[in-house]
Amino acid sequence: MVAFGGNALLRSGQKGTYQEQLANVERTCEQLWPLLQQGFSLVIGHGNGPQVGNVMLQHEAGRKVFSLEAMPMDFCGAETQGSIAYLIEQGMNRMLLRHGLDRRVVSLVTQVVVAADDPMFLNPTKPVGPYYTKEEAERLHDASGAVYREDPKGNGWRKVVASPKPLKINNIDIVRQLAQEGNIVVTVGGGGIPVVEKDGLRTGVEAVIDKDLASALCATQIGAETLYILTDVPKVYLNFRKPGEKALDVITVAEAKQYLSQGHFSEGSMAPKVRAGILFVENGGGQCVITEAGELDNPACGTRIIP
Amino acid sequence: MVAFGGNALLRSGQKGTYQEQLANVERTCEQLWPLLQQGFSLVIGHGNGPQVGNVMLQHEAGRKVFSLEAMPMDFCGAETQGSIAYLIEQGMNRMLLRHGLDRRVVSLVTQVVVAADDPMFLNPTKPVGPYYTKEEAERLHDASGAVYREDPKGNGWRKVVASPKPLKINNIDIVRQLAQEGNIVVTVGGGGIPVVEKDGLRTGVEAVIDKDLASALCATQIGAETLYILTDVPKVYLNFRKPGEKALDVITVAEAKQYLSQGHFSEGSMAPKVRAGILFVENGGGQCVITEAGELDNPACGTRIIP
Repeated sequence: MVAFGGNALLRSGQKGTYQEQLANVERTCEQLWPLLQQGFSLVIGHGNGPQVGNVMLQHEAGRKVFSLEAMPMDFCGAETQGSIAYLIEQGMNRMLLRHGLDRRVVSLVTQVVVAADDPMFLNPTKPVGPYYTKEEAERLHDASGAVYREDPKGNGWRKVVASPKPLKINNIDIVRQLAQEGNIVVTVGGGGIPVVEKDGLRTGVEAVIDKDLASALCATQIGAETLYILTDVPKVYLNFRKPGEKALDVITVAEAKQYLSQGHFSEGSMAPKVRAGILFVENGGGQCVITEAGELDNPACGTRIIP
Repeated sequence: MVAFGGNALLRSGQKGTYQEQLANVERTCEQLWPLLQQGFSLVIGHGNGPQVGNVMLQHEAGRKVFSLEAMPMDFCGAETQGSIAYLIEQGMNRMLLRHGLDRRVVSLVTQVVVAADDPMFLNPTKPVGPYYTKEEAERLHDASGAVYREDPKGNGWRKVVASPKPLKINNIDIVRQLAQEGNIVVTVGGGGIPVVEKDGLRTGVEAVIDKDLASALCATQIGAETLYILTDVPKVYLNFRKPGEKALDVITVAEAKQYLSQGHFSEGSMAPKVRAGILFVENGGGQCVITEAGELDNPACGTRIIP
């Protein structure tokens, strides 16, 4: 199971043209080749941060310019599952052709169930979508009940949503089966479309599920051997970018927990990845490798979290 | 195999709110229940006309308001595959719960291969996306090579794209397998994401594949027993809405071809459905039923095209 961020495809600093995104996805897929070469079956979970941000802006712009209804986040997330999976399929097609490998790439639209009473819903913190004036934000809050907070940098008001824990991945047995049959499977895009379930009835909610946690859950439930969490640094570090910085090669779950509690990993970036790795290994996974995609050709790459 | 239009979910005359779309999809899914009751496995192909139109407007608005890149049609179509499949899964969840039936619903992002030298590319006729001024249309044509034509009703200039013939459905064997295993499969959304293939390399193209033709091809390749093409009238008619109007119950492929050549069916609506039915039955399918979704509880519903 490999998890990578939406920024592997839509990079900050680029305009995000179709050609740029295709080039980015092709590079990312090429970097996954060593995993196929090692004989792995491959399931891909990907983020959608920049993509769903753009979709929400496009919905807001469509509302202003063409009076189209702006859709809630579950719908927007589903849109990005379609478009990002398509781009990944294009990148995989090119990579597989280059290496003369015949594998099917199958992309599933994937709902992920979260608990309606997840405590994160009481304190939504993840800012998403466009900036509004205070008056607009108040009007939107009154209309939909969504929570808006003022941006600390003074850009205006933004919707904040919860980041609840993923509990159940829809169609997980199909993901497992397709992967076991040798297909490359794309799933849990953007962490999955968040839904709550009551007596079997599923209802979409506005939330963002952490894609590393969703990928860890997916990896556990399909019985993956290794969970690769790709990021923009080759390893996990103690004292990252501080005096005494130290790259970690292999750490146990107990060590990982200790470093976490000591505050070595920043909440916005490395901490959730390490937590996802711990979750996977604690639930029976062999190892979690946190590294940069470009390192995958080195079998000893990255930081390994082991039991 | 059941094909229905995007307008079953996003109806003209409605605002297209999330709640309206959910209510529409739930009604459509409920109308499919008789097919499950009859013991059919179910594969669903759906259109995306109103949806991809909205996405293209949102991209255009996002370009104007937030300077975001407006993406080409293959990308926009992929977005709608994600969002429509999600809505269908929600509608199916409600329908299955109501009837106490335990079936998984699996939605695949689906590319459909068309020929780069399909003659339709020489004469694109399908208007899509926003209206532009003549000057904007000329600038866009110069930048992308896309073709723009003046709207006959005087609303401005619009991109026109080709409607090439679907040749190959990606992952069709997985669609077949999943359906045979009893899953409800959602595929070929919007007729599929159109790609051309050269030496195995797939490239997205701006085009619209007819969803009835794509569904007919899918139905043939999965060995479907019956292709249901859902529309807004209960049957196919000779002299539709003219003196001598006559509903058709059962017609042979030869009769269907004869009526087609006599101009009984309008090009914008019934003719492509009848052609899709002919294609399916000529390629070994048992029968094609063209009817309204609300009629499906009557086993003798609609117009049947038989060998």
